[in-house]
Amino acid sequence: MMQAVYNIAEICAQHGITDVVLSPGSRSAPLTLAFARHPDLNVRVVPDERAAAFIGLGIAQAQRRAVALVCTSGTAGLNYAPAVAEAFFQHIPLVIFTADRPPEWIDQLDGQTIRQRNLYGAHAKGEFEFPVDTSHADAKWHSARIVNEAINLAQAAPAGPVQVNVPLREPFYPKPGEEIGYDKDVKIIREHASNATLSPAEILELRQLLREAGHVVVVTGQQPGNPGLLSALYEFVTARQVPVVGDIIANVGEVADVQRQDIFLAGLSKDHKAALKPDLLITFGQSLISKSLKLFLRDAAPAQHWHIQDAGEAADTFRSLTRVVRVSPAVFFQQLSEGAAKNQPIETALWQEVDDAAANFLSHFFATEAPAFNEFSAFRQSIAAIPETTALHLANSMAVRYANILGAPQGRQIEVFANRGTSGIDGCTSTAVGAALAQPERPVVLMTGDVAFFYDRNAFWHNYPLSNLRVVLFNNHGGGIFRIIDGPRQQPELDEFFETRQLLTAENTAKDFNLRYFPVSSFAELEAALPVFFAAETGAAILEVFTDSKTNAAFFEEYRSAVKAAFA
Amino acid sequence: MMQAVYNIAEICAQHGITDVVLSPGSRSAPLTLAFARHPDLNVRVVPDERAAAFIGLGIAQAQRRAVALVCTSGTAGLNYAPAVAEAFFQHIPLVIFTADRPPEWIDQLDGQTIRQRNLYGAHAKGEFEFPVDTSHADAKWHSARIVNEAINLAQAAPAGPVQVNVPLREPFYPKPGEEIGYDKDVKIIREHASNATLSPAEILELRQLLREAGHVVVVTGQQPGNPGLLSALYEFVTARQVPVVGDIIANVGEVADVQRQDIFLAGLSKDHKAALKPDLLITFGQSLISKSLKLFLRDAAPAQHWHIQDAGEAADTFRSLTRVVRVSPAVFFQQLSEGAAKNQPIETALWQEVDDAAANFLSHFFATEAPAFNEFSAFRQSIAAIPETTALHLANSMAVRYANILGAPQGRQIEVFANRGTSGIDGCTSTAVGAALAQPERPVVLMTGDVAFFYDRNAFWHNYPLSNLRVVLFNNHGGGIFRIIDGPRQQPELDEFFETRQLLTAENTAKDFNLRYFPVSSFAELEAALPVFFAAETGAAILEVFTDSKTNAAFFEEYRSAVKAAFA
Repeated sequence: MMQAVYNIAEICAQHGITDVVLSPGSRSAPLTLAFARHPDLNVRVVPDERAAAFIGLGIAQAQRRAVALVCTSGTAGLNYAPAVAEAFFQHIPLVIFTADRPPEWIDQLDGQTIRQRNLYGAHAKGEFEFPVDTSHADAKWHSARIVNEAINLAQAAPAGPVQVNVPLREPFYPKPGEEIGYDKDVKIIREHASNATLSPAEILELRQLLREAGHVVVVTGQQPGNPGLLSALYEFVTARQVPVVGDIIANVGEVADVQRQDIFLAGLSKDHKAALKPDLLITFGQSLISKSLKLFLRDAAPAQHWHIQDAGEAADTFRSLTRVVRVSPAVFFQQLSEGAAKNQPIETALWQEVDDAAANFLSHFFATEAPAFNEFSAFRQSIAAIPETTALHLANSMAVRYANILGAPQGRQIEVFANRGTSGIDGCTSTAVGAALAQPERPVVLMTGDVAFFYDRNAFWHNYPLSNLRVVLFNNHGGGIFRIIDGPRQQPELDEFFETRQLLTAENTAKDFNLRYFPVSSFAELEAALPVFFAAETGAAILEVFTDSKTNAAFFEEYRSAVKAAFA
Repeated sequence: MMQAVYNIAEICAQHGITDVVLSPGSRSAPLTLAFARHPDLNVRVVPDERAAAFIGLGIAQAQRRAVALVCTSGTAGLNYAPAVAEAFFQHIPLVIFTADRPPEWIDQLDGQTIRQRNLYGAHAKGEFEFPVDTSHADAKWHSARIVNEAINLAQAAPAGPVQVNVPLREPFYPKPGEEIGYDKDVKIIREHASNATLSPAEILELRQLLREAGHVVVVTGQQPGNPGLLSALYEFVTARQVPVVGDIIANVGEVADVQRQDIFLAGLSKDHKAALKPDLLITFGQSLISKSLKLFLRDAAPAQHWHIQDAGEAADTFRSLTRVVRVSPAVFFQQLSEGAAKNQPIETALWQEVDDAAANFLSHFFATEAPAFNEFSAFRQSIAAIPETTALHLANSMAVRYANILGAPQGRQIEVFANRGTSGIDGCTSTAVGAALAQPERPVVLMTGDVAFFYDRNAFWHNYPLSNLRVVLFNNHGGGIFRIIDGPRQQPELDEFFETRQLLTAENTAKDFNLRYFPVSSFAELEAALPVFFAAETGAAILEVFTDSKTNAAFFEEYRSAVKAAFA
């Protein structure tokens, strides 16, 4: 009866899926047995489905292949929804198996029964309903086919989450002594991704346009580290002498001339900004962090904006989109750098000049200020200490902003991750936990704030070691961001309804989950703690940096004034 | 610009909504200001939206009127989804305001932007899109109208959750010195619910059918306490001498003859069960807990099954549904008890006889067994001690099952709640917290297990006092239910993939949230702790009952064997 269900695990394994995150349940028992007993699958059990899905996302992100999620019927699958949306917008492949009651029992007041068809609505790439009865040969074919289709769809560009709803009738368990087997010759449909290139005619046209375009600026959005792309991009910008502007989450630090846009664009005068305006803007990747950069580009209104994206919907982030080029950015830059005539090198020089000025400003600002202990300074001190080859996870909301101003340490092969598909705080810790589980030999550092951290404490609620994970937790006892951004800080509701003071510290959480705990409240304590905290032998640990929200806001205001003074 | 948004709060208040649960955000700022400043609304801030929505559900359930939920854009609203599904199936009115970016910025890689239209799919009664620009007079009318429609829809029978998506353009905040006002003459559309009754012809027909029906049994599903219904039901069963069978969540203890069906139906022989079979089954309310009762009724296949429900889809829970009667159960029983000829009293006697036998069995079983400390016995000891007028919240999964076997203490005006709409563990604590906040003068007792408890710890993560709340936490360090139900306990995967051992205790959670903490590991300790724990002056507290999962399973197995022996 359950052979088709057991074969789901076999099909996943034959497609190269290695990792499964499962949350326990009764209705899902046949799926649990299928995945748990499969020799080629690494199944981890995480009880809170919200955390489980983000952990799966973190594993998929680190391994760059699809992860399977398995849950029982009812609201279990709804708790996946935040991670599903993040995976959808960040293009991370997840294959989600939701156990369900058979269709005849939906809405009949049975336990743990909801309406699971198309559970993720507009945030899944697709949804499949597993046949409830697989005794007919056509149903057997159907059942294997849709699992193949779901995996292929999840992994096809742009990757994303796909739901397979699996209605199951009792009995759920094999009879005593009955073995579970997998059909090794189960139907497999492999999908070969194509590598699209531009035709010679298109290349000619784009080269011509590029030559005539005037000032060209390349702006990169969020993307994982990609050496092939970086070398093509390097070739292109060297040949054409155009500036590359990249936020910290773009992972283009080795090539980008310009990374401090969050600093100087917040301060430059209108005239100075005008000199930086592109005539042709070329973008690839996903979202930007820098609001200053976003506003600058919207205001700049370049005559042309080309967005390079091989598949999927293209966003018009700056209201100036004129062309979508349907190849991968690596192919584009490689094909367009050949036979290049230089563009307007003056502009590269201008951008580099302000970027250098911003670097100098930053060093100077932190060297001459002798501030009270505050988050921004402590963040700078901490990020400077992260180990080589770290997978650096930046939580929403202030952590990723501080990091984008300060930049990641250069030359340490640091790759930067952040849940910027939806910019939620709901799964930042779980995502980092997933990364730590996926690559136990690689240091994983999460820099986060107290609201994001306590929101997602169940990230630690499982039985898997995390010795390579370090959490730097900036605890200002509330949503300190609301004291920093304009708007709420002028309202009488700031304390109660925006910042929302919360009293937790991580001490008890550290005890609960056997994490080493380093509380610090001064620059000296932080300085002393950092080497021990980051030492490989320390194991899983939380460094909790206590600061005062008002001090933080005051210091950040000083920073902003200094930026304005320096770049006006 | 924002007047239409501010008026949302005014319309809510004029419709009698008093309580709002809000989670902080930036995009939602105009809604935050509108609700926070309104003099007639009690706004509570809860940062974790999953907990916030269940807290809102708990408040709505206790107050029996709609609660408004307010969240920011992005995945915030997705974290509401589990509570929304529970509200949908349990018929609890929630009006959900999700702040959103304006439509032109959806899918444009802006932060905290997802596809929020119809976010809850099949689990909301409806979804409305607030106009993004309310400068036109038609848009003003539209904006006020849909808020009215949403509130009316949420409250119309069967009540449920409704989403109002509110796209908001900057600026979000009033200028310095600018006052926020409410249009007191804002458009209000009141909806008057009708009280449907059966026509004389229908009454005649149903009476006739009832007289000819043979054995009649009334089975009540989950419903809140309802004195009007109870007296009509009492009148009916007295006049007709038919048995009323009710699970603990049906809140019909004062009228139901039969409440121990979970005991005797698990043991009775086929022949004995045959004698209890109804010819006509009359049901009302929502789900049953007792699997034995459900299986008995499915197997009984009565010739007729009437389900009494004034509005909404009617479930065919026992596969025997023949009539849906579209009046409220109170009206039905009142109209059908008049002019009644007695049905077959013999059957009432039979049911009462086995129910009495079950009561005797239970006393005898616990009196003669001298067991090792175990969950079932400790549960019995604890539930016997709960104070008068308690709102008793029973968590899924074992708590509600134990309670249904043991019954609530009689004569103490105890009302029983459980999230049996979806039977999830994800919000049981938050729901109880909502109940405690809504009725601070009433004792609220949550009986729960460790997996449900730690899943939903963020229920406590806010700044509101809970002095009337007591949590009895049965900690067996895992999903002990999997060791008790058939199936998983025979599998080698039991420990790792079903029960999933978890090591937490509530000690640190109690510290984190300033809850008094009573750990007990023996009958004597429990006996000593109970009076102090439940004393009104103790304040918010957790009683953590530590048991061993294997001992629990062994003792429950003894119970099951004893049932079989006693009723075979």
